[in-house]
Amino acid sequence: MEDRATEGWTNASLHERRSALRDTVAELYALGDERALRLILNSQFPADLADLMRHRTEDEQHYLFELLAEGVAAGVLAELDTPTMLEVAEGMGDHQLSELVGEMAPDDAADVLGELPEGQSEKVLELMEDEDAEEVRELLAHEEDTGGGIMTSRLLIVREDMRVEEAIRYLREWAEEEQILNIYVLDEGDALSGTLSLRSLLLAQPETLVRTIAERDPIAIGAHMDQEEIAHLFRDYDLLALPVVDGEGKLIGEVTIDDIVSVMEEEATEDMYVMAATSSEEREERSTLGVVRRRMPWLLICMLGTMVAGAMIHAFQERLADAAVLLLFVPAIMAMGGNTGIQTSTVTIRSLATGELRGTNVLKTIGREVRIALVMGALLGSAVLCIATAWTEMWTIGLCVGLAMCSAVVFSACMGALIPLVFRSMGIDPAVASGPLITTLNDGISLGIYFLVARAMLVTWG
Amino acid sequence: MEDRATEGWTNASLHERRSALRDTVAELYALGDERALRLILNSQFPADLADLMRHRTEDEQHYLFELLAEGVAAGVLAELDTPTMLEVAEGMGDHQLSELVGEMAPDDAADVLGELPEGQSEKVLELMEDEDAEEVRELLAHEEDTGGGIMTSRLLIVREDMRVEEAIRYLREWAEEEQILNIYVLDEGDALSGTLSLRSLLLAQPETLVRTIAERDPIAIGAHMDQEEIAHLFRDYDLLALPVVDGEGKLIGEVTIDDIVSVMEEEATEDMYVMAATSSEEREERSTLGVVRRRMPWLLICMLGTMVAGAMIHAFQERLADAAVLLLFVPAIMAMGGNTGIQTSTVTIRSLATGELRGTNVLKTIGREVRIALVMGALLGSAVLCIATAWTEMWTIGLCVGLAMCSAVVFSACMGALIPLVFRSMGIDPAVASGPLITTLNDGISLGIYFLVARAMLVTWG
Repeated sequence: MEDRATEGWTNASLHERRSALRDTVAELYALGDERALRLILNSQFPADLADLMRHRTEDEQHYLFELLAEGVAAGVLAELDTPTMLEVAEGMGDHQLSELVGEMAPDDAADVLGELPEGQSEKVLELMEDEDAEEVRELLAHEEDTGGGIMTSRLLIVREDMRVEEAIRYLREWAEEEQILNIYVLDEGDALSGTLSLRSLLLAQPETLVRTIAERDPIAIGAHMDQEEIAHLFRDYDLLALPVVDGEGKLIGEVTIDDIVSVMEEEATEDMYVMAATSSEEREERSTLGVVRRRMPWLLICMLGTMVAGAMIHAFQERLADAAVLLLFVPAIMAMGGNTGIQTSTVTIRSLATGELRGTNVLKTIGREVRIALVMGALLGSAVLCIATAWTEMWTIGLCVGLAMCSAVVFSACMGALIPLVFRSMGIDPAVASGPLITTLNDGISLGIYFLVARAMLVTWG
Repeated sequence: MEDRATEGWTNASLHERRSALRDTVAELYALGDERALRLILNSQFPADLADLMRHRTEDEQHYLFELLAEGVAAGVLAELDTPTMLEVAEGMGDHQLSELVGEMAPDDAADVLGELPEGQSEKVLELMEDEDAEEVRELLAHEEDTGGGIMTSRLLIVREDMRVEEAIRYLREWAEEEQILNIYVLDEGDALSGTLSLRSLLLAQPETLVRTIAERDPIAIGAHMDQEEIAHLFRDYDLLALPVVDGEGKLIGEVTIDDIVSVMEEEATEDMYVMAATSSEEREERSTLGVVRRRMPWLLICMLGTMVAGAMIHAFQERLADAAVLLLFVPAIMAMGGNTGIQTSTVTIRSLATGELRGTNVLKTIGREVRIALVMGALLGSAVLCIATAWTEMWTIGLCVGLAMCSAVVFSACMGALIPLVFRSMGIDPAVASGPLITTLNDGISLGIYFLVARAMLVTWG
């Protein structure tokens, strides 16, 4: 790493380093100094070059890509976000693309090819060397967000009856840049029988049999296991790598901790986007209309809901003598219902996602949220009771607004806790049950509660 | 790991394994079979026992804890979530607590002591062995969410002028259960001069000098670096461990990838909670009132905002002849303004958190959001124009509602993109700029726009 600009990481942030690189490249690009550009670009980390590419126009991307050595270009292509990667890939011939993809680790290659239009990825695969293409095809056959979809198939494998010195000799041939987290041990029947750490190899005598120092019966996961579940395993058991086996216990790949870091970020992003009634796939959309298509559906459904609320206000106003004054508090009651619903649903959805909320502690959690809701309802209800009484100088109005607020808050909070749980048990993503959906639902119901309380109280007394 | 129940991980999920353990323990507890309980409990992973504890009452937790061997109990205590850990710690004597904490890795010990009430943690530290206590005190001195706060100080350190065989001999003494990701190399002046991988040790000749095979000038971070920034480094550069150095370049600790996995989860949780106008610290609150105190402040501010909106509706209704019919669309305009604001702010906040949105691509992102907002505004405006015209049979009303909707959506979306950026540049957590805050703000502004458009158009024509 000596040739890379690593000094100063201690104090300068990632951001500053990258912005300095961008400035230098922009300057050299303006000067047309190709030789200096080539030197600088090829001594950077792929992630920094990927950041650089994201800031350039398509033409500049192509120009800069041409200056990269093949290995570096492959690394950058694997690091790029999807829209930028597609832009770059579009400007490349299938031939050049197949060479870059052939340079990548098989899991990175599968990720890149998985994003390309089907026709193009098939062409690229045909141009690749048969062996590499076969490896990538096998990975592409798995669902994207499962163990099979995130694993790599390039593993360091030894046999039970090898001696330690043979295993070490074998290790020497392993490519320098690939990290080794686990060495896998197979028995005579080719089934996974154990794992070996570098440390145990290092401390063993050369003539020892691998079998005697291997960790037997390692934890293994199936190719179909959901990536979020796998991330929980890594987190809870402090793992660095997990072998993936097929139905017969045959080793087919390995999931490593760096994939898990990406998975955790991806899952959190997806949940946040879904909670805002869109989908993280909009990040991969290159056209404005594509994004709009993803953000629109729930909004339209919500809009219909708000029409019902509008009709309620309309009816409210025509039937109640005190309507004019009661309208003052309509936004407060609607918004507080919506907001407490968002708080409870966010807490519930996140606890489901991190695996904290499962099985038997569901009742405990609901109980807790109900207690909190009762206190919040009482407090917000009292607050609005005072405000409304002071404002309108009518305690009947105050009492009516206060009671409605309290019921709306308690009801909305309960809905916020329950709906994600119901969705989860129906196999629907619980994150859908927040944001616009729950706000609109709770807005409407809060308004209905207000309307009913007001009619009951004011008609009786008034 | 042979003695642990690991079979079947391939197919059974984490959830099922844990619920089986909970059932078994509940049965044995009911039978009072202490011997069987002791056997089963002491052969489990700490994370599974932590899950078990979370599901039991305080009395049962204490009973079960007494059955654990000291090493296991220390592991479980380190894995527990804060409220459960505090419950368990409360029931233990300071003496027992100090023994368990002394068994932990120094970073886990610091985490546990950092959560205890100050007086208690001081007492526990005094009861610990001087050397251990000193180590933990040093870690406790760092800010919780910085490199210093998440690092461990127990490192494998060798000197430049050692031979490989000496380094390996030194390695033998390292505790079996601690993972080795990096070996750090110091020069004569005790400054960090390089890192060594197990692999390079394994492939080197015994008499080689460590200096010649070390990776020189390793990337190192400062103790003050923000944990989110560190997580970005690990993600972008596929790192497993990073050394932490002080101002003089002296090695003081190491951040490892398993800490980063926790950091990423923690940061995403914190952002989601803040976006819902609460704080993830509410998870550490044991009392209902404590949680209410965290959820209340923004809600109260929002409630004042909604009063302004209420006053606007009130004024609207008194001054405009068509008010009754216009009220029908008040919830739609308010909600769509709020919802598009949430979508844009969520996208912006998340891109800031993952580091995608920085420096020069801010303008590009805002431009993209404005384009999307214009399309969404036009579509939602047209939709509501048609609905309103059909419903009221007055095209003037339809046009007025449609125009107001379009402006409200475009304006709210722009606010959703801008406010998080402004907050960030002011050093305020951008996640605050979503959820209730932006909804209420956009509700009010959307309503104001509606009111102004309606008055301008209907007064002119009507």
